[in-house]
Amino acid sequence: MAKQPDSPDADETPRVADILAGDRRALARAITLIESTRPDHRAAAETLLEELLPHAGGAVRIGISGAPGVGKSTFIEAFGLHLIEAGHTIAVLAVDPSSALSGGSILGDKTRMELLAKRPESFIRPSPAGQAAGGVARRTREAMLACEAAGFDIVLVETVGVGQSEAAVADMVDLFLLLIQPGGGDDLQGIKRGIMELAELVVVTKADGVLEAPARHTKADYEAALSLLRATSPHWKPRVLACSALNGDGIAEVWEAIVAHKAALTDVLADKRGAQARAWMWHELQDELMASLRADGRVAKQAAKLEEAVSDGKISPSAAAQKLLGVFLARD
Amino acid sequence: MAKQPDSPDADETPRVADILAGDRRALARAITLIESTRPDHRAAAETLLEELLPHAGGAVRIGISGAPGVGKSTFIEAFGLHLIEAGHTIAVLAVDPSSALSGGSILGDKTRMELLAKRPESFIRPSPAGQAAGGVARRTREAMLACEAAGFDIVLVETVGVGQSEAAVADMVDLFLLLIQPGGGDDLQGIKRGIMELAELVVVTKADGVLEAPARHTKADYEAALSLLRATSPHWKPRVLACSALNGDGIAEVWEAIVAHKAALTDVLADKRGAQARAWMWHELQDELMASLRADGRVAKQAAKLEEAVSDGKISPSAAAQKLLGVFLARD
Repeated sequence: MAKQPDSPDADETPRVADILAGDRRALARAITLIESTRPDHRAAAETLLEELLPHAGGAVRIGISGAPGVGKSTFIEAFGLHLIEAGHTIAVLAVDPSSALSGGSILGDKTRMELLAKRPESFIRPSPAGQAAGGVARRTREAMLACEAAGFDIVLVETVGVGQSEAAVADMVDLFLLLIQPGGGDDLQGIKRGIMELAELVVVTKADGVLEAPARHTKADYEAALSLLRATSPHWKPRVLACSALNGDGIAEVWEAIVAHKAALTDVLADKRGAQARAWMWHELQDELMASLRADGRVAKQAAKLEEAVSDGKISPSAAAQKLLGVFLARD
Repeated sequence: MAKQPDSPDADETPRVADILAGDRRALARAITLIESTRPDHRAAAETLLEELLPHAGGAVRIGISGAPGVGKSTFIEAFGLHLIEAGHTIAVLAVDPSSALSGGSILGDKTRMELLAKRPESFIRPSPAGQAAGGVARRTREAMLACEAAGFDIVLVETVGVGQSEAAVADMVDLFLLLIQPGGGDDLQGIKRGIMELAELVVVTKADGVLEAPARHTKADYEAALSLLRATSPHWKPRVLACSALNGDGIAEVWEAIVAHKAALTDVLADKRGAQARAWMWHELQDELMASLRADGRVAKQAAKLEEAVSDGKISPSAAAQKLLGVFLARD
């Protein structure tokens, strides 16, 4: 895995006490270790995580998504600065599977969130490069726990709203927030189907100047659309807000809605997080098991042939699956 | 597994030639065999399926979903009779995971679709009882292939719109149709979030009498909501129609839209079906592999302990997954 700019070497295992004391360099090192794909790093990361876990869980966990161009960085900066003014500390993590392809990173651009990045109350971490979507989300969840152990009381997990990582992020946070811009449907905004369904909060950005009226209109459209969707939780009905990162209008209301959501979930938050953690264990187990299967040379050889036969209707998917299962489990 | 009323014994393996000749009793026997969970039946079913496969694929495959009360049976009956008048033959299958719990069946009520059931051009099959959701959908896919081999040129796969089986059904059909009733959002209709996202066609039922105006209104609402969702296919934009099973208005238009969808997909249908079959193979393999894992006594024992530790934040989900993977793969 390519070493990241400004990321310390994963070989230096950070001290737990330093992380717990909020030492940002130690936290950065911990996350680099967590993101490493080297087996020895992985083992060290798991040991470290076991020690951090008892100190995790104290943050409000917020997932945030929106297509490129929606003003995500601008919103996060305004929102983060508002929270810092109110006495909070905030960590911003990113899940961006596309960066695994491009080698880039949604938070890699150093000019992004410049004011927020300068504040000692914030910690901004670009998404790890060079991993598949599942792997990125998995490590981001662990990075979130490390940030909590380091004392950050709000963790924002950012995605780009175009991939498969949104559901994974929704499964690791307390609240999923979707940013949209004034005018046009999701279709025009490039938001993938299914992402709106995850949103507990929809925020229309750029609600200022000439876009103020269109933003109001878009807000009403989404309120109508959301009313057609069944709420996933009996404790919370998704809300739509509008804000301007430029003049600050509505930014406080976004936080108020998050606080209201937290209050509404008070009695069930521990259960929600417990269920998320258990589901995460099974997902991870499933991913690892399928990875083991795909890494099996004999399975891979048979799978290629069987995929062709299945596509051509020469063998049923069930029969093909049975054959592959037999090959995998009949290891010697 | 409980024997189904009017279902022939799975022990009598039907003759392939009889199924191909359209013998309904042979087809019913084939499906009973396919649905059986007994290992020897399973083996016989797979052999049979291999022989039927070359003769499958000739039908238009339609998934149809809607909450209880939407008028699903009434719609399917009117729609089916319309298709028969137009010279088609139609098979109706059901996936209903809730019946696995209740022991009931969404198509089990003999008074449902009475007129359609009487026609020799139709074949109606209740959903199998006593299986888990994944299992039901899996066998339904195979039953669909058997119906195609028996010469039915339209296969309808019905679900109740409240469970996890809708995505599985969408993955086995050419077009997914969602029925909704006039007035109220999905919230009031009990449609689970995410199901609307699967729909290539939304049909408002009961568009007659006093409900005609509300139906028009609901149609407009869903058109607006769908315009906010990104289309999943570059070849087709979801449409909303309204119809009345009572007076027949709009029923022909539903079929016309399905024909238009089929035409739009002409060049890509084989690819879509090939991709569905391959995805199905991998899903089935994953399900079987996880079933093997869960059936492993040592894994089950550890999993119970680890789930608790994970919920309590005593171990990370990743570390727990690694432990379970180790237990499973270190078989002797």
